[in-house]
Amino acid sequence: MSLLQAQPLKVINVGLESFDAAIRAAGGDSVHVEWRPPAPVDAGVLAVIARHTERIEAANQEAVARLQKAQPVLIDMGVARDLIPGMADDLLLHAGPPITWDRMCGPMRGAMIGAVLYEGGADTPEAAEALLAGGRYRFAPCHEHQAVGPMAGVVSASMPVFVVENKTYGNRAFCTQNEGLGKVLRYGAYAPEVVTRLKWMADTLYPALQAAIRATGGIDLKNMIAQALHMGDEVHNRNRAGTSLFLRAVTPALVRSVPDRDTVAEVIEFINGNDHFFLNLSMPACKASLDPVRDITDSSMVVAMARNGTDFGIQLAGTGSAWFTGASLVPDALFFAGYTKDDANPDIGDSTITETGGLGGFAIAAAPAIVQFVGGSARDALHYTLEMYEIALDENGVFQIPALDFRGTPTGINAVRVVERGIVPFLDTGVAHKKAGVGQVGAGVVTAPMDPFVRAVEGLAATFSTN
Amino acid sequence: MSLLQAQPLKVINVGLESFDAAIRAAGGDSVHVEWRPPAPVDAGVLAVIARHTERIEAANQEAVARLQKAQPVLIDMGVARDLIPGMADDLLLHAGPPITWDRMCGPMRGAMIGAVLYEGGADTPEAAEALLAGGRYRFAPCHEHQAVGPMAGVVSASMPVFVVENKTYGNRAFCTQNEGLGKVLRYGAYAPEVVTRLKWMADTLYPALQAAIRATGGIDLKNMIAQALHMGDEVHNRNRAGTSLFLRAVTPALVRSVPDRDTVAEVIEFINGNDHFFLNLSMPACKASLDPVRDITDSSMVVAMARNGTDFGIQLAGTGSAWFTGASLVPDALFFAGYTKDDANPDIGDSTITETGGLGGFAIAAAPAIVQFVGGSARDALHYTLEMYEIALDENGVFQIPALDFRGTPTGINAVRVVERGIVPFLDTGVAHKKAGVGQVGAGVVTAPMDPFVRAVEGLAATFSTN
Repeated sequence: MSLLQAQPLKVINVGLESFDAAIRAAGGDSVHVEWRPPAPVDAGVLAVIARHTERIEAANQEAVARLQKAQPVLIDMGVARDLIPGMADDLLLHAGPPITWDRMCGPMRGAMIGAVLYEGGADTPEAAEALLAGGRYRFAPCHEHQAVGPMAGVVSASMPVFVVENKTYGNRAFCTQNEGLGKVLRYGAYAPEVVTRLKWMADTLYPALQAAIRATGGIDLKNMIAQALHMGDEVHNRNRAGTSLFLRAVTPALVRSVPDRDTVAEVIEFINGNDHFFLNLSMPACKASLDPVRDITDSSMVVAMARNGTDFGIQLAGTGSAWFTGASLVPDALFFAGYTKDDANPDIGDSTITETGGLGGFAIAAAPAIVQFVGGSARDALHYTLEMYEIALDENGVFQIPALDFRGTPTGINAVRVVERGIVPFLDTGVAHKKAGVGQVGAGVVTAPMDPFVRAVEGLAATFSTN
Repeated sequence: MSLLQAQPLKVINVGLESFDAAIRAAGGDSVHVEWRPPAPVDAGVLAVIARHTERIEAANQEAVARLQKAQPVLIDMGVARDLIPGMADDLLLHAGPPITWDRMCGPMRGAMIGAVLYEGGADTPEAAEALLAGGRYRFAPCHEHQAVGPMAGVVSASMPVFVVENKTYGNRAFCTQNEGLGKVLRYGAYAPEVVTRLKWMADTLYPALQAAIRATGGIDLKNMIAQALHMGDEVHNRNRAGTSLFLRAVTPALVRSVPDRDTVAEVIEFINGNDHFFLNLSMPACKASLDPVRDITDSSMVVAMARNGTDFGIQLAGTGSAWFTGASLVPDALFFAGYTKDDANPDIGDSTITETGGLGGFAIAAAPAIVQFVGGSARDALHYTLEMYEIALDENGVFQIPALDFRGTPTGINAVRVVERGIVPFLDTGVAHKKAGVGQVGAGVVTAPMDPFVRAVEGLAATFSTN
């Protein structure tokens, strides 16, 4: 009889949680110690980073301070062509890092087809696809044009956009209006009903909201997001409170600014019927807050995480306009009836700008309902947020988690810590069908891949080698 | 050297938490065991209760099942005189158990004076007071007229009221519209601005909301409260989410029903400016849900807890129309600038109908912000809710606490358990100045006194002795 058999098994498990679960399942007693191996980064790269620790830390202090000082305010709406720098009729913006047509996933191709139909560039999906594949349109990331877009994130020239200004730094960010769930452009659907809805949003919703927003004199989105976190939102996958607060703020001005009662009622009903409406405000609020952090030499703070459905890309404050990419992962999700993980496209969208800004998955402890629908508990939600403090530069001065005694959310992702600790950002996400034209099939959670962070740290190290 | 001095002190503390805190403060190690002495109930009474345990438990199962099956729906508005059974021009309804003018507290007297001025019964506060003291008006509890009122809870004949119908049992409950915070009638203020606001609420707010509510075809308050609990409300002291959801539900119908745009905008702005507006809907929702539980022989379930600012009264399902009372306690509160606990009136209002219905203090874990403003933590909020399960008959089938993994709220107070365990209901509350005419001075938390529960159990025991 071996020693192990002779006495009750007591184990200290370090690392993989599945070992711990197996020991407990077999009736053993186990204490689990969280530990993950650091990411596989070249020793020479790590040595360069280590030699410049003080400079990196000083730069990161400045970077996260700028994010904390941001004051994103919804000031206006307008048409993409008139407002977005560099926008043109032959340009289609998209979520995530740069990508060519041949590498685009199904839902992004579907959204591109829908945008061409919406703009009147073609009469049939087939004709639109031929133009897109044939070089008639140019493609560029939203992020490179002061914009962000959820899921496929496609923005074409005549689409109306929200204008969010960061009052502290004077920069602006743009985002289209949220269409609702299901068969919608951003999930890759392009059926006639999708285009019809987009036309109504441009012809009726947009002018009414524009008039109302102008009449309010501006809506403080930072304050509104802070309130929403106290009301069960993390403003990425759950926006019920944010949408409610936005409606409260805008409705009196809407009633006073728009003469036609039916139009006012239709506008309120449309927003009321879509609890995600606020996502397209929380996203540009984060984009406007993060853009002033770009181009801070030496900083390892992440200023954008974005996915095009094929690649997951990040940008650092200290590495200029460079994108560092890796393969996007397939989310764990609650799937709509009739769909499974086999139908799911890899993670897609610019909406991870919320996590980059200390919200979304980083604030999931404020919105345990999201974890619950993928089989998790409120405790899991706390755990995810607590883990994110390990890779964050600061605690948010305004965004708080009630369940953590109103502790500020983990804010400002330090790419160096991500690779050192082996902890990747935790993300909320919607799930698109992998085929063009189908639309949304679920919503859930996922993590960022490690590769882009490894590449980014290598990129940062290279800036030291060259100066 | 005694044994105690010779080795590190390790203490197991049972009961009073302050002992535990003192040991820890002195550097000792202490494990605290929660225990409270049972309430001082006559042994003969307890023996009667013990002999009838099975009958009580069967009756309580029926009682809490009726509460669980309630479906409170906001169906209409109207004027108190036309709708409230027994309402008359010389009748003034008030919060809490019955009380005479000579025993009324300051804020209730102030609200009575305001109501007489509002009804045009007198031209000056002094004249109104003389009429009230001189027997010109009759007084009766809201609860005895299918109504509930927050704080002083004064309802006079021409005030507009919400109509909430329990669709399962067909009964109705009534409540006035919420005026907002500060210098308002329900906190005992009666200055001209208070009466002017009440007139606007009757002449403008009421007809607009009535038209809108009728146009909606009814608003499901149970569903709305369930959503609000997922959004940081406990629908007693925090109603921001409920107010937001109510606005979302009613605004499209309001826009379509009311031709005058300025009126629509003013109505929305008034509600938007008062995050407590929903309290006057959550209260009648609970009242309508609990009234069908009255008159269940043998049941020790509480069907009303209510305070008139002098007495705290409760009613049981098994003891008919009898009130069991004790002195109302002074709340712990966050006081407005310039006020202290010395200014505070003892606890007042029918709003504890929310706790009676499994909400308010019983659901405080859903709204930790309330505990925070009296110096507590999110953990304290969890603790209070967890303690209430000890005296509750069931877990709510619809109202859930996200932070407790969506566990149903403690629902249906068992008065026998309250005295056996020595645990009194935990309550959220607003705080009125003790002098007539001043108004609100804070908001906080308090507990029910034990006396009414002891009296109620004695009353229940008496029903067994007589049959």
